[in-house]
Amino acid sequence: MTKLKLGMIGGGPGAFIGPVHLMAARLDDRLALTAGAFSRDAGKNRQAGEGYGLAPDRVYPSWQALLSEEARRPDRIDVLSIVTPNDTHFPIAKAALEAGFHVLCDKPATLNLEEALRLRDVVRATGKHYALTYTYSGYPLVREARKLIAEGRLGQIRKIVVEYSQGWLSQDVHSKQADWRADPRQSGLGGCIADIGVHAFHLSEFVSGAQVESLSADLGIVVSGRTLDDDCNVLLRYNNGTRGVLVASQIAAGDRNGLRLRVYGEKGGLDWSQETPNTLTLNWHDAPTQILHAGTPYVSYGARVPAGHPEGYLEAFATLYSDFAHQVMTGEASLVPGIEDGVRGMAFIETAITSSRNKSWETLL
Amino acid sequence: MTKLKLGMIGGGPGAFIGPVHLMAARLDDRLALTAGAFSRDAGKNRQAGEGYGLAPDRVYPSWQALLSEEARRPDRIDVLSIVTPNDTHFPIAKAALEAGFHVLCDKPATLNLEEALRLRDVVRATGKHYALTYTYSGYPLVREARKLIAEGRLGQIRKIVVEYSQGWLSQDVHSKQADWRADPRQSGLGGCIADIGVHAFHLSEFVSGAQVESLSADLGIVVSGRTLDDDCNVLLRYNNGTRGVLVASQIAAGDRNGLRLRVYGEKGGLDWSQETPNTLTLNWHDAPTQILHAGTPYVSYGARVPAGHPEGYLEAFATLYSDFAHQVMTGEASLVPGIEDGVRGMAFIETAITSSRNKSWETLL
Amino acid sequence: MTKLKLGMIGGGPGAFIGPVHLMAARLDDRLALTAGAFSRDAGKNRQAGEGYGLAPDRVYPSWQALLSEEARRPDRIDVLSIVTPNDTHFPIAKAALEAGFHVLCDKPATLNLEEALRLRDVVRATGKHYALTYTYSGYPLVREARKLIAEGRLGQIRKIVVEYSQGWLSQDVHSKQADWRADPRQSGLGGCIADIGVHAFHLSEFVSGAQVESLSADLGIVVSGRTLDDDCNVLLRYNNGTRGVLVASQIAAGDRNGLRLRVYGEKGGLDWSQETPNTLTLNWHDAPTQILHAGTPYVSYGARVPAGHPEGYLEAFATLYSDFAHQVMTGEASLVPGIEDGVRGMAFIETAITSSRNKSWETLL
Amino acid sequence: MTKLKLGMIGGGPGAFIGPVHLMAARLDDRLALTAGAFSRDAGKNRQAGEGYGLAPDRVYPSWQALLSEEARRPDRIDVLSIVTPNDTHFPIAKAALEAGFHVLCDKPATLNLEEALRLRDVVRATGKHYALTYTYSGYPLVREARKLIAEGRLGQIRKIVVEYSQGWLSQDVHSKQADWRADPRQSGLGGCIADIGVHAFHLSEFVSGAQVESLSADLGIVVSGRTLDDDCNVLLRYNNGTRGVLVASQIAAGDRNGLRLRVYGEKGGLDWSQETPNTLTLNWHDAPTQILHAGTPYVSYGARVPAGHPEGYLEAFATLYSDFAHQVMTGEASLVPGIEDGVRGMAFIETAITSSRNKSWETLL
Repeated sequence: MTKLKLGMIGGGPGAFIGPVHLMAARLDDRLALTAGAFSRDAGKNRQAGEGYGLAPDRVYPSWQALLSEEARRPDRIDVLSIVTPNDTHFPIAKAALEAGFHVLCDKPATLNLEEALRLRDVVRATGKHYALTYTYSGYPLVREARKLIAEGRLGQIRKIVVEYSQGWLSQDVHSKQADWRADPRQSGLGGCIADIGVHAFHLSEFVSGAQVESLSADLGIVVSGRTLDDDCNVLLRYNNGTRGVLVASQIAAGDRNGLRLRVYGEKGGLDWSQETPNTLTLNWHDAPTQILHAGTPYVSYGARVPAGHPEGYLEAFATLYSDFAHQVMTGEASLVPGIEDGVRGMAFIETAITSSRNKSWETLL
Repeated sequence: MTKLKLGMIGGGPGAFIGPVHLMAARLDDRLALTAGAFSRDAGKNRQAGEGYGLAPDRVYPSWQALLSEEARRPDRIDVLSIVTPNDTHFPIAKAALEAGFHVLCDKPATLNLEEALRLRDVVRATGKHYALTYTYSGYPLVREARKLIAEGRLGQIRKIVVEYSQGWLSQDVHSKQADWRADPRQSGLGGCIADIGVHAFHLSEFVSGAQVESLSADLGIVVSGRTLDDDCNVLLRYNNGTRGVLVASQIAAGDRNGLRLRVYGEKGGLDWSQETPNTLTLNWHDAPTQILHAGTPYVSYGARVPAGHPEGYLEAFATLYSDFAHQVMTGEASLVPGIEDGVRGMAFIETAITSSRNKSWETLL
Repeated sequence: MTKLKLGMIGGGPGAFIGPVHLMAARLDDRLALTAGAFSRDAGKNRQAGEGYGLAPDRVYPSWQALLSEEARRPDRIDVLSIVTPNDTHFPIAKAALEAGFHVLCDKPATLNLEEALRLRDVVRATGKHYALTYTYSGYPLVREARKLIAEGRLGQIRKIVVEYSQGWLSQDVHSKQADWRADPRQSGLGGCIADIGVHAFHLSEFVSGAQVESLSADLGIVVSGRTLDDDCNVLLRYNNGTRGVLVASQIAAGDRNGLRLRVYGEKGGLDWSQETPNTLTLNWHDAPTQILHAGTPYVSYGARVPAGHPEGYLEAFATLYSDFAHQVMTGEASLVPGIEDGVRGMAFIETAITSSRNKSWETLL
Repeated sequence: MTKLKLGMIGGGPGAFIGPVHLMAARLDDRLALTAGAFSRDAGKNRQAGEGYGLAPDRVYPSWQALLSEEARRPDRIDVLSIVTPNDTHFPIAKAALEAGFHVLCDKPATLNLEEALRLRDVVRATGKHYALTYTYSGYPLVREARKLIAEGRLGQIRKIVVEYSQGWLSQDVHSKQADWRADPRQSGLGGCIADIGVHAFHLSEFVSGAQVESLSADLGIVVSGRTLDDDCNVLLRYNNGTRGVLVASQIAAGDRNGLRLRVYGEKGGLDWSQETPNTLTLNWHDAPTQILHAGTPYVSYGARVPAGHPEGYLEAFATLYSDFAHQVMTGEASLVPGIEDGVRGMAFIETAITSSRNKSWETLL
């Protein structure tokens, strides 16, 4: 099994999502970290490179340096992971794709919809592989849910309720993680809606196969002093007439990472919660509830360990890395989200902001 | 302990809520069924009266007969329970109050807001006690939740999520219960919003102490052939600036009676689900989650049996009956919902319908 | 629907189980309390009679007086409920049966096995109906579990794990309820094993259809000062070779009323917990877990209210009363436990005590 | 951060636990696989080595070759992982320690108690580090539970209930995994008791701080044709007088990997289940239940990702690897189980087998 060579932009000391990407890559060992530009601070950058065991000449002072130098090497990296704040996603991804690298980017795709549309053009023009880490689509039972719906097991879909409830911003906290998210220049026009609302949005479309057509949003700023929303409630209409509700909050004090999806069809509904990801509940109109367990033979998407040995967030993330590696190596399509998901996500964010400002229903795209 | 004498309108063979009222009354034995007009069908009426062990002369052919005859008796009933379809709530309640009886009515209070406002005048004018069986306010842990919030345990309230999810109308069913609810003449302008949405609305106000000021609703008809909504999603703004979401559905196939309330404050959130009513969860921003168990010494509102011996829906209902009996006997206020709750409920229903029709935010009252 | 007339011995002020019996009887209204001897204290006895709304001449100073007077009345009671401490169960039940009354007795049947065997003779000789309130056999999903096993749905039974875990005696408490249970003269030779262990024992036999043949018990006294066991662990062998474990404790600090039964067969296992009695879990070897919900059409044993409207302990108790009323009125057999269950329960208690004392495996009966 | 060099014996194609060890090692990246003897089949051995990306000269045909060759290299491995069937644990571990390598061995330590005692001598004599992968001690909330008890938070310990319930051997299955476990030459005298019972035993001692002194076991063979136990029920007495029960089964059809521990003290009890490892429940005698969530600031043992991002079995395993690496590098003690745990585990297995055969209480060690 040949491994791909991985480069990373971002992920220096104090970072949250960079180390997560690396643990994910290592778990299945399909991509090996080979180069990086981890921090704009030279000392922190070097420290990160050493910590990750990289050759010093492959720890670069900037993403520009990484791209230009790596492009020249015969043993150049194959895939570039982008784990920086949102405002740099677009320029880095664009440059990397144009330099011939495959790109795996943390969500959201870009700072705004216009960038996302331009990035889509770049992806199409370069023909390189592009993946967005909507992490939750890596859980086996999320994929199973998608499959069950696609097979018609629930009948026609009629209602979707998706919620993503966190409490970590319920206080006026300040930290590296909190601060860049609260800064519109770094994170864009959306706060909670862009940080986690978009995860919920993607999950609902990924699993249901339906697409949001219009919405009415009420985005609020609860903790005073903020300039970006920290609490979001959205009414949704999907393209097949399905009504939906999306509730996302970062001021839901006491909640942790409460992403939950319910999809109802004619015959029954499914229910999945990220905090207990190894079960999927199917409630039937006229029969006992069923609980599917990850790692069993009757679930199509496999687990690394047998049923009853829980897998979690890092394993879901690792699956995205492994699937993307497979996609890059074979050219085969995979379930890893791509640039279309990125475009839709940015459209969702911008439409929700407009709707909330106008107190009106607005159409997506 | 003297018992009150109870009369009932409705509750004949095939009824759902009438027998529930009677089991509730019997459980604590504070009111004894003494008279009734159970069905407009003479045979069914007699059959019900016999089944309930009533003296034949106190089984009346109509509610009008019951009121006029009972009013004349020296051993007249004290309290009249109204368990008929919504369209008759107003005339019966008005006549009963004016005849000097206390009234306990199933929700919603009336067919529309105008009737509710008129009924409020009647209640005020007659000085009789009037109660609405918003059942779920009878659960001890719902009351405890209300108390904890009133005491400021969660800090200022910031977000409310209330949902009431049923699946029994997900198919095109026809039954006595399904049919009158689907008939606007009998049930009013609201379908799901009036049948269960109003329960969720009341619960959110009862527990949080906040009042809905404006809303944006999306009410749908999912099962074709219906004329009234069977699926409701509503964005809410409460009077203290709190944002909220209300999701109510009767086409959530596979769901049973999924009433759940979450209220978030500055310090934490509370979470209560009707299907597991004997626990109340408190999630704290910076401390372990707490689970309160009904029947323990640390819960203010007592149970009939010790902790770990589950109580349910009938016990919650019985608490409303017992509290109302106490209220009638002593004149003391109780937690049983009254006409103000009835007025607010009708305002909610009408405003939601208007909002959904106009696709706009609308103000309540 | 004719009601039976009910008499009661015990259940005066401060009693726990007497009022439970009466709420149970009232809920379904098949038996009407008509006579009683509630307390040996004349004042308390009168107070109870008034509270229950009885005619003064049917409130008797002693159980002997009740039996002799009622036996003479043309409108005599039909059924006698015995809710006194264990030591009086036998003499009262024997006398009542011989006076021609049907008897419904709280568990355990008697003070010891010898009395139970003698009582069995009396039941057989008099031909009267006799019921023991092993409450938990009244839950619809317990009965459904029994039915599923009897139908072979799990295949041959292979393992049983039953536990009953309470914490209320984890401290050196003193109360009316705690004190009589700690007094061997009133409660017999068993403490926890007789108070709740026997419930667990009965539940395991009731549901599985298997009978315990031998056991090895380790009964302990954890809280110093007690003379009766407060913590019990028992290895079991059933008559079909099935191994089992019974864990019962009243010093499991923090636990409430944790009765849980798991039965494993060749194809899967079932799992039921009393604190969440409205679901029954079936785990299958090769298929998704199933959750059955009380009140649904696919459960054979009905509920009073639809699925999702929880019923609890009082409803289970009420079912025993209603079933016993039906049994008495029609002569038809019912699922209500009888004297055979009483005999087996006493044999279990005595064998467990012997086994624990001898540190040996012992055979039952 | 310097990495340790890791060698592995076992873990070839079709293996379960070898790949688990390697994912665990990679996740935190403290040990790098450098050498191995993965299979006695030369082709499979080479295939595994290539799959793991090893240099061909460090893929050895036998464990003996690995030890002798590596011992000579200047860049020799630091740590040897042993993931073979039980019968080879002792000779490999002994030889490796004597060749100067640190050893990390899958459980159980050896084939029998006598070997374990001899291995303890070797560990002491060589002064090398030795770890046993009792995986479940790697979960943060298991460690937190241990800490809470050590701090006296529950008061004096009074009762322990530990269960490990699997169903995968409920049928007469044959596979590489099933077959070696069923062969006494490869797995020793214990079946279920040695495969999973010993995990439950270790967990109960690890968390409670108490040690089993005597036991009465009932080990059964449920699926015909087996020679080793597949179902185990054990009464326990710990050294502080605490009573306990251990239930382990591999024929609990429908169960997955149901390891659960409850420990009760004077003030309350704790409850942890492996299938939902990110919460720890504390039930208190006189206060609300508490749920501790992994990844929160109030839990002493940290997580890789924030609260609400579930970690699982592989992460627990990885923690053992990381802790062992730290122990080897610094000489500091860690929570990773060692040879004393190995000796006690083997004593438990042998004593349980003797007790079951004799139907008697037996003393451990």
